[in-house]
Amino acid sequence: MKPILIFIALLFAFPVFSGTPNKQTFLKWELGYSKTAESMPSKWIPATVPGAVQLDIAKAEKYGQYYYAEHWKDYLWMEDQFYTYRTSFSKPDLVVGERAFFISKGIDYQFRIFLNGVELLSQEGMFTPVSLDFTDLLKENNELKILVYPVPKLHPKPVDRSQAANVAKPAVSYGWDWHPRLVPLGIWDETYLEIRPASFIEDFHVNYSLNKELTNAEIKLEIAGRNLKDLPFVWILKDENGKEVLKSEGKTKLTFPNPQLWWPHDHGKPYLYTSTVLLQDAAGKVIQTRESKIGFRRVKLVMNEGAWREPDGFPKSRSVPPAQLEINGRKIFCKGTNWVNPEIFPGIITRERYDELLKLAKEANFNILRIWGGGIVNKESFFELCDEKGILVWQEFPLACNNYPDDAHYLSILKQESASIINRVKKHPSLAFWCGGNELFNAWSGMTDQSLALRLLNSQCLELDPNSPFIPTSPLMGMAHGNYVFRDLQTKEEVFSNMPRAHYTAYTEFGMPAPASVEVLKTIIPKEELWPPKPGTSWESHHAYKAWVGNTWLCQDIIEDYFGVSNTLEELVANGQLMQGEGYKCIYEEARRQKPYCAMAANWCYNEPWPTAANNSLISYPNIPKPGFYAVKNACRPVLASAKFSKFKWSEGETFFADVWMLSDLPTDIPAGKVKIKLVAGTSEIAALSWDYSPMKANVNQSGPTVRCKLPAWSTDRFKVVLEVEGYPEYNSEYTLAYQPRTVERKRTTPVMNQ
Amino acid sequence: MKPILIFIALLFAFPVFSGTPNKQTFLKWELGYSKTAESMPSKWIPATVPGAVQLDIAKAEKYGQYYYAEHWKDYLWMEDQFYTYRTSFSKPDLVVGERAFFISKGIDYQFRIFLNGVELLSQEGMFTPVSLDFTDLLKENNELKILVYPVPKLHPKPVDRSQAANVAKPAVSYGWDWHPRLVPLGIWDETYLEIRPASFIEDFHVNYSLNKELTNAEIKLEIAGRNLKDLPFVWILKDENGKEVLKSEGKTKLTFPNPQLWWPHDHGKPYLYTSTVLLQDAAGKVIQTRESKIGFRRVKLVMNEGAWREPDGFPKSRSVPPAQLEINGRKIFCKGTNWVNPEIFPGIITRERYDELLKLAKEANFNILRIWGGGIVNKESFFELCDEKGILVWQEFPLACNNYPDDAHYLSILKQESASIINRVKKHPSLAFWCGGNELFNAWSGMTDQSLALRLLNSQCLELDPNSPFIPTSPLMGMAHGNYVFRDLQTKEEVFSNMPRAHYTAYTEFGMPAPASVEVLKTIIPKEELWPPKPGTSWESHHAYKAWVGNTWLCQDIIEDYFGVSNTLEELVANGQLMQGEGYKCIYEEARRQKPYCAMAANWCYNEPWPTAANNSLISYPNIPKPGFYAVKNACRPVLASAKFSKFKWSEGETFFADVWMLSDLPTDIPAGKVKIKLVAGTSEIAALSWDYSPMKANVNQSGPTVRCKLPAWSTDRFKVVLEVEGYPEYNSEYTLAYQPRTVERKRTTPVMNQ
Repeated sequence: MKPILIFIALLFAFPVFSGTPNKQTFLKWELGYSKTAESMPSKWIPATVPGAVQLDIAKAEKYGQYYYAEHWKDYLWMEDQFYTYRTSFSKPDLVVGERAFFISKGIDYQFRIFLNGVELLSQEGMFTPVSLDFTDLLKENNELKILVYPVPKLHPKPVDRSQAANVAKPAVSYGWDWHPRLVPLGIWDETYLEIRPASFIEDFHVNYSLNKELTNAEIKLEIAGRNLKDLPFVWILKDENGKEVLKSEGKTKLTFPNPQLWWPHDHGKPYLYTSTVLLQDAAGKVIQTRESKIGFRRVKLVMNEGAWREPDGFPKSRSVPPAQLEINGRKIFCKGTNWVNPEIFPGIITRERYDELLKLAKEANFNILRIWGGGIVNKESFFELCDEKGILVWQEFPLACNNYPDDAHYLSILKQESASIINRVKKHPSLAFWCGGNELFNAWSGMTDQSLALRLLNSQCLELDPNSPFIPTSPLMGMAHGNYVFRDLQTKEEVFSNMPRAHYTAYTEFGMPAPASVEVLKTIIPKEELWPPKPGTSWESHHAYKAWVGNTWLCQDIIEDYFGVSNTLEELVANGQLMQGEGYKCIYEEARRQKPYCAMAANWCYNEPWPTAANNSLISYPNIPKPGFYAVKNACRPVLASAKFSKFKWSEGETFFADVWMLSDLPTDIPAGKVKIKLVAGTSEIAALSWDYSPMKANVNQSGPTVRCKLPAWSTDRFKVVLEVEGYPEYNSEYTLAYQPRTVERKRTTPVMNQ
Repeated sequence: MKPILIFIALLFAFPVFSGTPNKQTFLKWELGYSKTAESMPSKWIPATVPGAVQLDIAKAEKYGQYYYAEHWKDYLWMEDQFYTYRTSFSKPDLVVGERAFFISKGIDYQFRIFLNGVELLSQEGMFTPVSLDFTDLLKENNELKILVYPVPKLHPKPVDRSQAANVAKPAVSYGWDWHPRLVPLGIWDETYLEIRPASFIEDFHVNYSLNKELTNAEIKLEIAGRNLKDLPFVWILKDENGKEVLKSEGKTKLTFPNPQLWWPHDHGKPYLYTSTVLLQDAAGKVIQTRESKIGFRRVKLVMNEGAWREPDGFPKSRSVPPAQLEINGRKIFCKGTNWVNPEIFPGIITRERYDELLKLAKEANFNILRIWGGGIVNKESFFELCDEKGILVWQEFPLACNNYPDDAHYLSILKQESASIINRVKKHPSLAFWCGGNELFNAWSGMTDQSLALRLLNSQCLELDPNSPFIPTSPLMGMAHGNYVFRDLQTKEEVFSNMPRAHYTAYTEFGMPAPASVEVLKTIIPKEELWPPKPGTSWESHHAYKAWVGNTWLCQDIIEDYFGVSNTLEELVANGQLMQGEGYKCIYEEARRQKPYCAMAANWCYNEPWPTAANNSLISYPNIPKPGFYAVKNACRPVLASAKFSKFKWSEGETFFADVWMLSDLPTDIPAGKVKIKLVAGTSEIAALSWDYSPMKANVNQSGPTVRCKLPAWSTDRFKVVLEVEGYPEYNSEYTLAYQPRTVERKRTTPVMNQ
């Protein structure tokens, strides 16, 4: 998305070709709908492009905000209509050789394009851009129409994600435990007319391979376009200061010595070079300029430490697959999160929305985002921002929780869509690896290693981007998904005891639910439904009830088991949000303690596409961090003092104990230091013990003592464990635990902590 | 291999073009060797083609048989020579348009071909056939030379299989625990001159897909060749009676209704049709005829019964990959074995050698052979015979126990070789599935799912043979390799207790060692070394000592632990062979009891490439079954009464117990019946119990009672458990167990068996 161009386009009430150097013209569109492909719409309404047909209708017909109350239900009929976008424009002035193109970076999902009544394209697939040469069909006045088909559905019933099991369209919008049934359709990415010179570069890729020592990049320039044969081009690589560091006049193979490497932000600088390719005409005049950022890095998935030693004994099976990311030869502990569509209608996502969310992701100390396969492959600005911010991207293809078939038609669409996705995204240094999709090798999906769709994706990635790893799905063997609640709904085992028992190479999904803050709740739930929360109300539509299993996602019963009956909404929300934060800290920090066998921790989920009443998300729609966000941010600091507890609720008179650790993912050594461990009840601070930790090697944790104390009496229902690191307040940590006094009024005594 | 043509070729003392219809001429070759590629050999010896350079030298220079004593060591110097094959022939008479070709189906491993001093080809790879059009270079008298390079070695040290880690050459010949270090080189498959008409079909493939109900085959004929454009062809499909059932005159897409299906021999008839394609010239005259057999079947690897339910609980990982073979919609329990090269020098393998071994495999009730990736991909006659006999083939690519690199050169050779292999073997209905190679995801190999070689093979199979499953290696997760001894060398746990504890989807390698029979031992071990066996003698060279780990493969210590010190070679061999049989029966029958979760059992290994002194093999070189072969044959009968024991050795006074089962892999139901269970010591038969089993559903086992009895005194060191099925002696089973009397002379009593 180029905001300046959009701005220019909006200035023109009537579409004419703008005077911008790249001669792009944004058009003014109208939208209509009808029951069949053949019948014409009876009326036309203004259309916003990019956008979604639902939003245009809602605006024109004054629908209530889809995220308020149960309004989303009013939108359901829109699934089954045929939509026509139309626009008209006058013939552009073309100098000799110039061609007029219609460009769309994405139309969702099945569509046909007509110019002056002539069908030019019929396509299935929202990720393959459209590029149509209109020139020979142009009249003085032209009408352009795009017919968009209804939401594809494999079967009429059941009305759920399985309807998307034979399309390369994100399954999430068919309904999920945190996403209403709202299936976008329409033009969802930049769309414009473009005048192109006779010769034109359509795609340009700086392919490189780094030598073993990372001191040299062998570069191969790949240029694709029209009438390029024998035309001179110049390629220039500039460093961050704008200094030219490499230049090619027509040569496609070059050597670049000593490239500055691109690193994720917590391991170095995400160094970006500027690549500029200039196309010249026969006279040497520059007729086209393409600029992009490139970063040099090597990514591998290697075996986790200790994984080769498993399994032991006979009969012997294979070892688990690798889940340790290695960037530029360095094994990196991945701290991240699962990213979902930041909007239900991806057409309205802007660079600014991405930027807000990615700023927060970096603030949370995340170095990787898993772009979950239930959602879209993001727009270009997303990847540009990840490149800049040094955030790795685990990119999934749009397959999730379905059994995508060994069917020739589906496979042909998947081949087309995956090629478009790979060829676009592979240019970004933030790309960590490809993944076939979400939970495909679990019972609820039913795919296996033999499924042709996944063999095809592996093959496509190998052919088009052999330097990036590929995994067929998550979880792989040895990787973990879940749990998604504070304590197991069947066994009632708390995350505090479950996590230390777990032994996985990567925790790639784990959730802790929390209600949204009261201010958010007020924007989505009518006042009269707000308290107390009940099933069958807007609370349920917003996933507080009957979302996943049990009483998810509000989990009021669990919250009240620990902190008693809530008297107000504020109290319920505060306790639920506290438990989310403490639960998440437990998992992230325990995963880090399990390093190096464990190499990754990513919670489910980061953000949400609409405001939920309760959800595992860290950030309420659109960009409002929950308190749990800050808990996770603390747990993911490069260095911190950390305490491990065996349970959440402790009773008066019981011997409390905790293991103390220093965690470090820092790529440099840390000197020795001292941790003070305190128990705090209310305002009374009980100093008890200190631990002198030894000097710490880069990227290696240190386990400390187990501290113990018999819990005295106090009157609150909670207490804190505070770790203070002498001279390094930025390493301090604080945990809140639940407390059960024998009697509320019992006199306090000072506990003594022991190692 | 077409024996009739070879015979004709041998008749001609001087090569001329034979008068056979397909105008093939076999040439008379000579061989020489030299220190460099440039220097010419100083002398020439007769060469046998196909064969191996080592065998030609051994014959000419009167070397001892490589399999006797330690003679193999005398052959080692041959690894590092350059070899030149040469032959001469006079110009053939060609009618207008005819072309003269040099054809070789396989030259091992790196070579260059020269005609009259002009280099025509330089190739690496033994599985890609050579097809060179000589016509324009022919003189009146022609000299053809093939320069074969020394054995490829990644590094000079260590001298082991890791030297083969960057070549598509079978690693086994670099030395294995049952294969001496003898690395073949030279022309190893059919090689001849051929006169071809101006238009010629070089490859023909009947591609088909069966509908879901298996009632219809959609056929697509694929023809490749020279100057075929617009030439008429006729394709005829005939049934087993020679009746024409389908015909195409030029059309490549056809429908074949109600094809007879090809089945593995224990589930139906391996029905083969005859496919004939006739190429006609413009006048309609038949200028070429190609005939082959084809079978119609659908193969899938599907999830094992119960596998979707695992793993349970949170955090949740993925389920194990599928290891259940489904043929024509029927889930089949695979009983098979691991096939290794039947010769050290594959050049001398004939159709007859294959036939002998495959007859025995069918006799052993095996329905699948795993063609282990340490060896070659077999010659065409192997697959033709498997097609005929109804034996499934699990075909691995030549990768085994090495870390094959992400290296551009290696990958290019692998791509070439895998394409040649796939395009040849995919035509055979016996092909069950493809596999990347042996134990590649285990620590000793070090490859992972990210290894480009395996991603490439997956991709190649998907592209060239999408209807056949592909697995990257064996074992996969959930599959088992090992153990390879009667009791674990560390823990001393017997297979009788280890196997029932195991829970795997497929047991794809498991071994039980046995010494070769005395007659075989006498052919390989000099008389003076024969008794007692000792390390450092021919016993060791023939793998009785220091082969794998511990005292493998003779395992005299284990044998004598059960049966006391052996006084003669005969006694040692008999006891070792008995234990092999009983151990193998335990595994095969236990794997069958674990059906349907378990779907496959294949022992390590079937045959051997030279006579070993001790080995896990069932058949001594070349085709001499050990007693264990017959034990396995019994364990693999479609239906049998089976007893499960918790250990091998029982003591006087101890309460012996066994679980009784009826096992059935039969595709039809079986009526109810009665099993009599007896203990037999020496000649005294102690009838004790009978079990009335219920009617049995097709392909479903039935578990019976546990029978118990206090063991009386008798004087032998072993006893038998005999199961007799009333009216069905073919279901009877018999087991021998070891016995420890308290005193030899103690009086016998009659035991009583109880359920």
